[in-house]
Amino acid sequence: MKNMTNTGDKNYFIKRLNIIGGQIRGLAGMIDEERSYEEILIQLGALTNSLKGVGVSILENYMKNNLDKVDQKQIEEIINLYNKLV
Amino acid sequence: MKNMTNTGDKNYFIKRLNIIGGQIRGLAGMIDEERSYEEILIQLGALTNSLKGVGVSILENYMKNNLDKVDQKQIEEIINLYNKLV
Amino acid sequence: MKNMTNTGDKNYFIKRLNIIGGQIRGLAGMIDEERSYEEILIQLGALTNSLKGVGVSILENYMKNNLDKVDQKQIEEIINLYNKLV
Amino acid sequence: MKNMTNTGDKNYFIKRLNIIGGQIRGLAGMIDEERSYEEILIQLGALTNSLKGVGVSILENYMKNNLDKVDQKQIEEIINLYNKLV
Repeated sequence: MKNMTNTGDKNYFIKRLNIIGGQIRGLAGMIDEERSYEEILIQLGALTNSLKGVGVSILENYMKNNLDKVDQKQIEEIINLYNKLV
Repeated sequence: MKNMTNTGDKNYFIKRLNIIGGQIRGLAGMIDEERSYEEILIQLGALTNSLKGVGVSILENYMKNNLDKVDQKQIEEIINLYNKLV
Repeated sequence: MKNMTNTGDKNYFIKRLNIIGGQIRGLAGMIDEERSYEEILIQLGALTNSLKGVGVSILENYMKNNLDKVDQKQIEEIINLYNKLV
Repeated sequence: MKNMTNTGDKNYFIKRLNIIGGQIRGLAGMIDEERSYEEILIQLGALTNSLKGVGVSILENYMKNNLDKVDQKQIEEIINLYNKLV
């Protein structure tokens, strides 16, 4: 399966991305309000990590939908090992 | 100077962030349209790098505004070396 | 399989790590010879990427050894997608 | 100053790199002893971060040696902000 077609999964990721999109608008607002460089960079670093996290979740979703002979526990173990590494 | 107060600089970063915010909405749209996992992950990786790039630019802006005894060439050299490293 | 036991695989990763270990000694030598900051940082960045690459290969090896019901092509596809993301 | 010439600084970085080189040999030994994938990936992730940390320290050293009109506190502030971001 090369495409994400499950409606529940799609809505989940659309929602996560829309939240991050809203937080990026919030970050632009922080710059407009002249908040400190430190606050701005902390928030920007956090948003970058959130976006990376969505990527790993989408990859996990790909595995769940493509490796149908593999149980979920094994896929979680792979993601767990990946998270040890980075 | 702990805060970004130059109007031109502020508008520049607000604009860059708003563009990325728009691209994140576009990415949510790609998921809605059931585009391939590969296309989605390529775009997500590109957006993560764009966001990181804004962070490095804001750090560069901090240096330009705080290290007033240092000429611009030296600051560009630091950013150049940083970019070699990552 | 929680442990890597295949002798060929073990030797392959030991060899890759020993090469990187040798390159790190080489980098220490570059510092001793007072090579430029730029050269040193380029080499350090390259070595960091090599080491990350070994990590991804070990994770791939884990998948190959644990997801025995999954064909190799699927695992390569996962790694391919991962590499699109980062 | 495009090159690191201070003997104390050189020895400090050579020592840090030699320690990491030794830890990479230790990691190869862990593979030889068939330690778990999890232990190996945790250690590999830690070593990658150590190597990155040396890179940031060398960049900091470059700034200290090149921005002679800037006080140390300002350079530490830049590195502090950088660390917020990543």
